[in-house]
Amino acid sequence: MKKIAVFPGSFDPITRGHESIVLRARNLFDGVIVAVGQNAEKNYFFPLQRRMEWISEVFPDDPAIRVESYQGLTVDFCRQQGALFIVRGLRTSADFEFERSIGQINRQIYPGLETIFLLATPEFSALNSSIVRDIIRNNGDPRPFIPEAIHKDFV
Amino acid sequence: MKKIAVFPGSFDPITRGHESIVLRARNLFDGVIVAVGQNAEKNYFFPLQRRMEWISEVFPDDPAIRVESYQGLTVDFCRQQGALFIVRGLRTSADFEFERSIGQINRQIYPGLETIFLLATPEFSALNSSIVRDIIRNNGDPRPFIPEAIHKDFV
Amino acid sequence: MKKIAVFPGSFDPITRGHESIVLRARNLFDGVIVAVGQNAEKNYFFPLQRRMEWISEVFPDDPAIRVESYQGLTVDFCRQQGALFIVRGLRTSADFEFERSIGQINRQIYPGLETIFLLATPEFSALNSSIVRDIIRNNGDPRPFIPEAIHKDFV
Amino acid sequence: MKKIAVFPGSFDPITRGHESIVLRARNLFDGVIVAVGQNAEKNYFFPLQRRMEWISEVFPDDPAIRVESYQGLTVDFCRQQGALFIVRGLRTSADFEFERSIGQINRQIYPGLETIFLLATPEFSALNSSIVRDIIRNNGDPRPFIPEAIHKDFV
Amino acid sequence: MKKIAVFPGSFDPITRGHESIVLRARNLFDGVIVAVGQNAEKNYFFPLQRRMEWISEVFPDDPAIRVESYQGLTVDFCRQQGALFIVRGLRTSADFEFERSIGQINRQIYPGLETIFLLATPEFSALNSSIVRDIIRNNGDPRPFIPEAIHKDFV
Amino acid sequence: MKKIAVFPGSFDPITRGHESIVLRARNLFDGVIVAVGQNAEKNYFFPLQRRMEWISEVFPDDPAIRVESYQGLTVDFCRQQGALFIVRGLRTSADFEFERSIGQINRQIYPGLETIFLLATPEFSALNSSIVRDIIRNNGDPRPFIPEAIHKDFV
Repeated sequence: MKKIAVFPGSFDPITRGHESIVLRARNLFDGVIVAVGQNAEKNYFFPLQRRMEWISEVFPDDPAIRVESYQGLTVDFCRQQGALFIVRGLRTSADFEFERSIGQINRQIYPGLETIFLLATPEFSALNSSIVRDIIRNNGDPRPFIPEAIHKDFV
Repeated sequence: MKKIAVFPGSFDPITRGHESIVLRARNLFDGVIVAVGQNAEKNYFFPLQRRMEWISEVFPDDPAIRVESYQGLTVDFCRQQGALFIVRGLRTSADFEFERSIGQINRQIYPGLETIFLLATPEFSALNSSIVRDIIRNNGDPRPFIPEAIHKDFV
Repeated sequence: MKKIAVFPGSFDPITRGHESIVLRARNLFDGVIVAVGQNAEKNYFFPLQRRMEWISEVFPDDPAIRVESYQGLTVDFCRQQGALFIVRGLRTSADFEFERSIGQINRQIYPGLETIFLLATPEFSALNSSIVRDIIRNNGDPRPFIPEAIHKDFV
Repeated sequence: MKKIAVFPGSFDPITRGHESIVLRARNLFDGVIVAVGQNAEKNYFFPLQRRMEWISEVFPDDPAIRVESYQGLTVDFCRQQGALFIVRGLRTSADFEFERSIGQINRQIYPGLETIFLLATPEFSALNSSIVRDIIRNNGDPRPFIPEAIHKDFV
Repeated sequence: MKKIAVFPGSFDPITRGHESIVLRARNLFDGVIVAVGQNAEKNYFFPLQRRMEWISEVFPDDPAIRVESYQGLTVDFCRQQGALFIVRGLRTSADFEFERSIGQINRQIYPGLETIFLLATPEFSALNSSIVRDIIRNNGDPRPFIPEAIHKDFV
Repeated sequence: MKKIAVFPGSFDPITRGHESIVLRARNLFDGVIVAVGQNAEKNYFFPLQRRMEWISEVFPDDPAIRVESYQGLTVDFCRQQGALFIVRGLRTSADFEFERSIGQINRQIYPGLETIFLLATPEFSALNSSIVRDIIRNNGDPRPFIPEAIHKDFV
């Protein structure tokens, strides 16, 4: 049976930290689904379509990396996709505390589901999409923090 | 003098984690007041009346467990009720950092007031009302996470 | 070359914790700029003018302590001011995790910039502006938590 | 039934932080047993007899505060004493993580046993016996950190 | 290419927490090597031979789970075994901070090596071998905390 | 008055993380004293003389960076040296919790003394002398982790 992992997030926008997690998860799983959450009650900086296109441009050639959007609970999306793994990056112990709660609850709802954690690489350990948005909003240069493949859209 | 503890929160809705804290605090105090905060600037998922009824249904038979609503500072509510203790559950070290700040400030405002902490039991250490609301909002089944006495309202 | 530090924040309102950091940073630097952030997307409790006046009243006599407002990225403000240091207070490990991310990103954007941390003194380690606002909103007495020089405005 | 709490530790030596926890626990329980652990594999700075005498001198008049020594598991000592509560002080989130593990294991071994946590008061939040020993060893003055009743022995 | 993971530790003795990590890692990897560290400068409670036998008894039937001992750096052992993954369990944020340091250093020494983290299940989140040894040393019953397959040796 | 900072530690041996802190502290202070603790009860891997020579070789040309050894309390050493500042690097929130305790106690013993914290740069955030010693002990190559100026002694 193929080992499929879901990597859920807002990706608003995708960062170099996200890129690193996907590429390293790819070494571990037969397929990685980058799952872009779309939550009616949340305001996003970039529209869903844009966020998905960027992810596709970052991983253009590997058919085992797919981009999907989803609504509702992440566990339900995993079930639909036949995925038994969620993959998440850990940067700080605050991340860990948060992810532990989500991971434990997910396991109670869907007992077969396992959450796998990878370490953020040190140079991206401070990075998140909210910082990138803040830089964009204030006319700074976000390119050091986003994947090279999409630099062209942030000149 | 009777030892009365206030257990403050939003209880939006009450979880099995809350239930466990109240029952265990009951072993320690002569009376426990479950104090449902009502903050004009906050949006609640369930109306105050509903949140209070559910708590009453969870603890129907023990006159030493009372449900009250309050507005304003928790310390002022404690003073009105003649309560010298606040009781809180601790799940994670993030909880602890937050509660420590609140507890220290409360003690500066009302020097006689003591905050008592109980550990969340391991099986509820990942649980909070926000996760329960998220499950409800997405048509999941929240019953594993809420007290049995009110399961009938979540079919 | 003069050593200038920027102490950025919302100061909504200035607390005794802020006051302590500024006075202690003053022992270390030739000049300290208390930099009041003004973010179009954020709602403040007190208007910018009021927040700045209070800071001026707290440090009336030392020409090396200046109050300024700024918009945009803190690193850009530091550059404009010729400041090579940011100073921040640390209360809890949650503070630390947050500040570490900001400090690392700032250093990537502006390599010469160094963030310097001072410890909150124990009696203020629980204090923040949000707690002060909460007390004011609920008709409590915030004076134990704000600098003496501005007590007159909180009777 | 009387509510008896055990406050276990090495008390090598007792600090002002310990003193504060005992006095505040006394407001909550009918009796507090200060339980001085004696572990054959551990080296203590002060002999057991001395550590116990000092505690007795700190709480001379309250028959509800007793000093006892014990060997073996703390849960076994609680059972022998008919104590259903352990009381512990929390200073930092590192304390919390450590205490949570011990508290959960204790509860698995002795299901009726509840661990109750009090916050270290801010001025003692940095204090522990190891720091006091270090000061003594280096001919510093430990008196600011130990209870007044035993200052006479540290001139 | 086969995906082999090393699960390094002292296993002094193996706990139910370890057992859970191995079984769940088994779902993810083609092979799991339980690697029992033997460090000349460390005192162990149980001899190496005993610790290894117990692990073998816990996983008797799955040829993809192997027990090995090793000396020296874990990264060197991984290289010898052709393993590109280390697997570790995370219980607390203290665990996380420690593991992050080790994981980052390991990656600097052996760039292809990836550390994969699984969450301790809530009921084992307080458990470690040191607690088990403490129970044994004090004539308590360690069986709730060790794998069923080896209960016979702890009557 | 000159601003002198003490950077205390064991430096057993000095790492690239230490080197970075000293160089960055040098931008802030008029003088930095690298203070090598010598504690009779502690076993060091390298002798004091060796640890001090290495530090001297790392900072050969700047008369404002001095190496000294000391025994006893760090605060007493600061007093003797006329230093009003201690400088420390912060890598993790565990570091922070530890340093906060030491910093608060130091301030109670010597009220004029201020502890200043700098962030470990991300690439050294996992690094400490104990990891370096472990690599040396196991015949690994420690050079990526120690200052270039002393690589010649670790071939």
